[in-house]
Amino acid sequence: MFESAEMHHKVSKERFAREVPALRMKLLDAQYRLLGSKAASIVVVVGGVDGAGKGETVNLLNGWLDPRHVATYGFGGPSDEERDRPPFWRFWRVLPPKGRSAIFFGSWYTEPIVSRVLRHIGRGEADRAMERIRHFEEMLSNEGVVLVKLWFHLSKEDQGKRLRALEKDPRTLWRVTKTDWAHFRLYDRFRAISSRALRQTSSEYAPWQVVAGGEPHYRSLMVGRAVLEAFELAAKGGRPPERAKAAPAVDPVDQQHVLHALDLKKCLDKNRYEKDLEKLQGRLNVLTRRPQFHERSLVVVFEGADAAGKGSAIRRVTAALDARIYQVVPVAAPTDEERARPYLWRFWRQLPARGKVLLFDRSWYGRVLVERVEGFCTETDWARAYSEINEFEEQLAEHGVVLVKLWLQIDAAEQLRRFRDRQKTGFKRYKLGPEDWRNRKKTPAYERAVADMIDRTSTEIAPWTLVEANDKRWARAKILQTICERLKG
Amino acid sequence: MFESAEMHHKVSKERFAREVPALRMKLLDAQYRLLGSKAASIVVVVGGVDGAGKGETVNLLNGWLDPRHVATYGFGGPSDEERDRPPFWRFWRVLPPKGRSAIFFGSWYTEPIVSRVLRHIGRGEADRAMERIRHFEEMLSNEGVVLVKLWFHLSKEDQGKRLRALEKDPRTLWRVTKTDWAHFRLYDRFRAISSRALRQTSSEYAPWQVVAGGEPHYRSLMVGRAVLEAFELAAKGGRPPERAKAAPAVDPVDQQHVLHALDLKKCLDKNRYEKDLEKLQGRLNVLTRRPQFHERSLVVVFEGADAAGKGSAIRRVTAALDARIYQVVPVAAPTDEERARPYLWRFWRQLPARGKVLLFDRSWYGRVLVERVEGFCTETDWARAYSEINEFEEQLAEHGVVLVKLWLQIDAAEQLRRFRDRQKTGFKRYKLGPEDWRNRKKTPAYERAVADMIDRTSTEIAPWTLVEANDKRWARAKILQTICERLKG
Repeated sequence: MFESAEMHHKVSKERFAREVPALRMKLLDAQYRLLGSKAASIVVVVGGVDGAGKGETVNLLNGWLDPRHVATYGFGGPSDEERDRPPFWRFWRVLPPKGRSAIFFGSWYTEPIVSRVLRHIGRGEADRAMERIRHFEEMLSNEGVVLVKLWFHLSKEDQGKRLRALEKDPRTLWRVTKTDWAHFRLYDRFRAISSRALRQTSSEYAPWQVVAGGEPHYRSLMVGRAVLEAFELAAKGGRPPERAKAAPAVDPVDQQHVLHALDLKKCLDKNRYEKDLEKLQGRLNVLTRRPQFHERSLVVVFEGADAAGKGSAIRRVTAALDARIYQVVPVAAPTDEERARPYLWRFWRQLPARGKVLLFDRSWYGRVLVERVEGFCTETDWARAYSEINEFEEQLAEHGVVLVKLWLQIDAAEQLRRFRDRQKTGFKRYKLGPEDWRNRKKTPAYERAVADMIDRTSTEIAPWTLVEANDKRWARAKILQTICERLKG
Repeated sequence: MFESAEMHHKVSKERFAREVPALRMKLLDAQYRLLGSKAASIVVVVGGVDGAGKGETVNLLNGWLDPRHVATYGFGGPSDEERDRPPFWRFWRVLPPKGRSAIFFGSWYTEPIVSRVLRHIGRGEADRAMERIRHFEEMLSNEGVVLVKLWFHLSKEDQGKRLRALEKDPRTLWRVTKTDWAHFRLYDRFRAISSRALRQTSSEYAPWQVVAGGEPHYRSLMVGRAVLEAFELAAKGGRPPERAKAAPAVDPVDQQHVLHALDLKKCLDKNRYEKDLEKLQGRLNVLTRRPQFHERSLVVVFEGADAAGKGSAIRRVTAALDARIYQVVPVAAPTDEERARPYLWRFWRQLPARGKVLLFDRSWYGRVLVERVEGFCTETDWARAYSEINEFEEQLAEHGVVLVKLWLQIDAAEQLRRFRDRQKTGFKRYKLGPEDWRNRKKTPAYERAVADMIDRTSTEIAPWTLVEANDKRWARAKILQTICERLKG
C-alpha cells in the first residue's frame, strides 16, 4: 500500500516555481467550470500520519482555489450536538451541493482507525466500520459526489527524523509534544491498521491516493494534480443517475516508481551462487516435507517483463520439489472456455489441495497489467479488479495458502541484450515474437501499471516481493530465499 | 422481508393448467436465444426453509427447461477435494459458461446461515460472510452472470401444519424425521437470521425473490416467471463490461399484495375510541418523560395514499407531546438546495437530538414510491435505494433511535368519498389538487411499489406497521398503541 510513498521523491524548487502558476490557472478554471455546470460536487478527504504535511496542503489548496467556493472542515472530537446524533450526521450536515466542493480534514475514517489503534474496538468491528464506509462512498458516488481521498504518508524513519529535527531546533522544539512521541511509538500498529483500512476501502468509485509526505514540493504538485483531475472530471462529468467517475490515481510527478528504487546492479558470483542455491533448494525441500505443510499449500506467482527470467527461475524452484506435489501453470491468453466465465475462474479451478505447490508463470495480475495496457478490458473492469483480487487473495490466506508474489525486474538494456541473445541462439528463438519488440515501446505504460498494482495489491496478507533480476543468479537466490522465509513464517 | 410470502396465495388448478403451456414455450424459447447469444450466464440460487417446495421446484424447472443446457448442483457437506480448498472453490468450479445456466440447490448462503443458527459463529462473523457474498455477487454481475436468488418461505404455522399432516398419513409418516422437528424448534431463530442475511445481500444487482412456498401452483408460476425474466434479460442482455442487469422482482401472479390482506373493515366506536385515545396519549406522554428517553429519540414515519389520514393522525400524536420536544416535518418535492445533494441529505439534516421526537409526514420512502412510480428517478436509482435506506435505518437503530414506520391503507371507495368531501368542505379544498385525481389511476403501480417497499425494508431493526385506515378512529388508536409499544420495548 505504501511502497511508492516510502520512496524518496523530490521536485526541485525551480521546477516547482515553474509549474505552479499553470497548475493554479487550471485549478481555478476547472473550479469555475464546475460552479457553472453543477454537474457534481467534490469532497476531498484528507487523512494520514502526523507531520506528513496534511495541514500545509489544506492551506495550500485554499490558496490555490477560490476559497469562497471551497469549504474546509476539520473534524476533531464531536460536538455535543453531534454526539447526540448518529456518527455520520456531522458529515452529512456539511455535504457540499452540486457545483461546490469541500475539504474534509479528518473524516469518517478517523474515528474507526484511531479506535482500532488504541484497541478500543476489535478487528471485526473495524472491518464492519470500513464496510459501512464502502457503502456510504458508493452511494455518494452514485449520487454525483466525486471523492478525492488523499492519504499522507511518511516512513517510520522519516517520521523519527522529523521529530528529532524539530526538537533540535530551539525555535521549533515547542511543536513536539509528548503525544507526538506517543503516536510515534504506535507507528507500526497505525501503519498496519491503516493499510488494511485503505485496502478495504479503495474501491473503483473512490480509490485512495497515497501521497508521499516527506518533500513539500513533490507533495504539493501531486495533490494539486489529483485535485485538478477531480475538478475536471466533475465539471464535465456524469450527472446522476450515471455514477460519478472516480478520479484516477495521479502519476508521480517526478516519474519515480517503486521499480526505479531497485538496485539492479545487485549480483552474486558464481561460486557463492552455487553454494547458496544448493542450500536454499535443500531448505525448501525440507520445508515442503514437514508435517505442518500437509495442512497448508503454496502458491507462487511469477510476474515480470518479457525475458526477465521467470521460466528459468521457476525451474530452480521445481528442482527442489518432489514431482508429485507441484504443478506449473503457464498463463497465456484465455481460451474460449475461460473467456466465457469471470476472469478469476481459470485461477480458482487450478487451486492446489493442501500439501501441494502451484507455480503460476504469469497470473490473475494480467487483468491489471497486459489487459489494462493493451486495452483488452475497459477501465471500469481493471479498476474494480484490484479489490476483487484482494478479496480473492484474502480467501486464499484464510484457508492457509501461503501466497508468494514475485515481480522480476530488469532494465531496458538488459532486456535488449536478452532479446538479441534469443535471436542468435537457435533453441531460444521461439521465445521471441514481434509482440515482444512492440511491448518494449510501451515500457512507461507497463511501469505505471506495475507501480499501481504494487501499491494497491501489496497487502499485509499477500505482500509483493520485488526481485532485482538483471543478474539471474541474484534473482534466483532471492526468490528461493523469499519462498523459504514465507513457508517458515 | 417475509410479509408477502406469509400471505395466503393461491392459483387455481384450472388457471395453472391454462398458463403453464405458454410459460414453458417462452422459457424454452428464451433458453435457446441465450444459448445462441451467449450474452450472459444464469445461476439460479435456491434457498429457504424445509418443506417449502425447493426440491419440487428444482425438478419442475428441469422439466420445463431443456435439461441438457441446465446443470443442477446440490451442495451438501463439502467433499474431501472441496474441504482441501477455500470454501468458494466448489461454486467456482461449476460456474456455467456464457450462454448456459445452472441451478444451485444450496449455495454460498447455506453454510454461514446454518452455522449462525447453530451458534457455531457469532453475529460479526456472519455479517462478514454476508459482506463477502455481496462482493462476490457484485463481481459475478459485473462479469455477466445473471443471478436469480429464490428464497422459499413458509410461515411457522404452515410449517407445523405440514409436518403434522405428513405424520398423520401413514404413507408419508416416514418422511418426517427427528431432524425435521429439531429444525422446526429452531424456526424463529432461523427466520430472524435469514431475514438479516437477505436484507444484507439483497442488492440492486442480485435482489432476493422471496417465494411463498405453501401452494404448489402459485409457487411454480412465480418461480417460472422469475426464471423466464432472467433468461429474457440475459439473452438480450449486457455483455460485460456492462453489468448484467438484475431481474426485477416478479409481481405476485395472483395479484395478492400484503395490502390486500388487511381487514379494512376494522373500526372503533366513538365511546371506546375516546376512552382509548385519552389513555394512549397519556401513556405516550409518560413514556417520553421517562429518564430513559433522554438517551434515545423517536422518529415516526407516516406514509400512505392521499387522504389516508396522515395529517390528522399526526395531530393525535403531537397532542400527547410536550411542544418543546417534537417537530413535524412535511416532506414535499425537494427544493433546489435539496436536489443538489444525495436524496437522503434532507432527512439526515433533520435528525432529532436525544430526547426529541420527529414526525415525518412522508419520508425517504418517496424514493421507492412516488419517484419510482412517476419516473422521477431511474430504475437503477430506486433499485439501489432499498439497501441504502436499510443502511440509513441501521445507523439510526444503532444510535438508539426508535424508528416507527407506519403505512396507512385505505381502499379506493373510501378515498373517493374523502376526495368528494374535500371538494365540498371549503377549508379542506386546498388539500385536493388535480394530481390527486391523477394518482388514483395509478393505484396498481403504487400498490406494487408499496408491496416491494415492505418486503425489502421491513427489517428486524425497523419493521413496518400496516394500519387499516378506512376508519380513522381505529387507525389513530393503532398508531398510538404501536408507538407506545415500540418506546416501551
